[in-house]
Amino acid sequence: MPEPTRLVPREAQGGLRDAKRQAILRAAASIFAERGYHNTSVSDVAEALNVSKPFLYYYLKNKEDILFECSRIATEQLHDVLEQVRRTAAPGWEKLRLLFRGYARVMSTDFGICLIRSTTPGSLPADLHERLFSGRRRLNREVERIVAEGIADGSIRSLHPQLATFALFGAFNWISTWYRSDGSMSPDAIADTYLDLFARGMRPEAGPADRA
Amino acid sequence: MPEPTRLVPREAQGGLRDAKRQAILRAAASIFAERGYHNTSVSDVAEALNVSKPFLYYYLKNKEDILFECSRIATEQLHDVLEQVRRTAAPGWEKLRLLFRGYARVMSTDFGICLIRSTTPGSLPADLHERLFSGRRRLNREVERIVAEGIADGSIRSLHPQLATFALFGAFNWISTWYRSDGSMSPDAIADTYLDLFARGMRPEAGPADRA
Repeated sequence: MPEPTRLVPREAQGGLRDAKRQAILRAAASIFAERGYHNTSVSDVAEALNVSKPFLYYYLKNKEDILFECSRIATEQLHDVLEQVRRTAAPGWEKLRLLFRGYARVMSTDFGICLIRSTTPGSLPADLHERLFSGRRRLNREVERIVAEGIADGSIRSLHPQLATFALFGAFNWISTWYRSDGSMSPDAIADTYLDLFARGMRPEAGPADRA
Repeated sequence: MPEPTRLVPREAQGGLRDAKRQAILRAAASIFAERGYHNTSVSDVAEALNVSKPFLYYYLKNKEDILFECSRIATEQLHDVLEQVRRTAAPGWEKLRLLFRGYARVMSTDFGICLIRSTTPGSLPADLHERLFSGRRRLNREVERIVAEGIADGSIRSLHPQLATFALFGAFNWISTWYRSDGSMSPDAIADTYLDLFARGMRPEAGPADRA
């Protein structure tokens, strides 16, 4: 029996479904960022989108699922930045600079804010929490490796790679708590100012006498 | 009519009540740090202390009250550090160094972890959230002022005081997310490593030629 004629081809339908799901996640992330995850109900998200709760549940299982997906998008964006950086044949410090410039951009989005502010311990069921945090731990290890690379190639001074990595992540993650899109500084400008600070802190000193 | 003889003097009773309340808060902060605030019930806290829920409610109104008091203790400890620093007649950078050394100690306690990890937007009723965050904003302004002082007295190079302050708070607040009391580094050692990084980033360069 031939398949009935579809008004919208199956693939485009899938695309439409994805687009709607994405729109829900964007709206949810924005409300989580504004009011806080624990203060927001699925009804609030439905109301903001002017749709019914059953409509939302067709796309996402529950509130935890929404939070997980929002945070997963941010984590994937961070891993995309990492992938790009790994493909460049630059010294360690330059890789770190490129990475954290992209990192600051993600931290200033609602998805980034979701990842840092809303997925605190206990927000997600153990299995989803673990999936998300294994991604974050992997990112952490990769950055530590880039710092170690930089020390080896001489673009970073001899320092404690793990603590320098924690300091970088702390400074950049914290952007998600105070950044305002209507503020005076762009994510790039914030990143450049931070990276100037960290460059002075982490790069070898100019005078060889100081390195004795 | 003479007051009946008390087995415990009234003042000591007050002290005892405070001590018990403090013990409850310490236990609660420890469980919040371990499992996450939103994953912990008042029953969990009672169970950990081996007391009844009514006993807990005699000392603290509800879970939000417990979170607020835990975070308030951390905020007060941070303000105590600030007060000590303000009394010293040291250059700006030295004040900053002393401040963040004390800051790291608070960040590695359960109360500090509570302040940073559990009091995300929406965890507390609006009035308590505002009381807590006005204290944190005041701390932020004071640190910005110390950075500006350091720029004026020449102990800190010319930089963006607000962004440098955010970077410092970010790095040091983040300690509360990864610090383990059974780890290899003490809060002082972490602070010293971080402050070495920030000293290089924020202090004027050694050679006057570099400052032209």
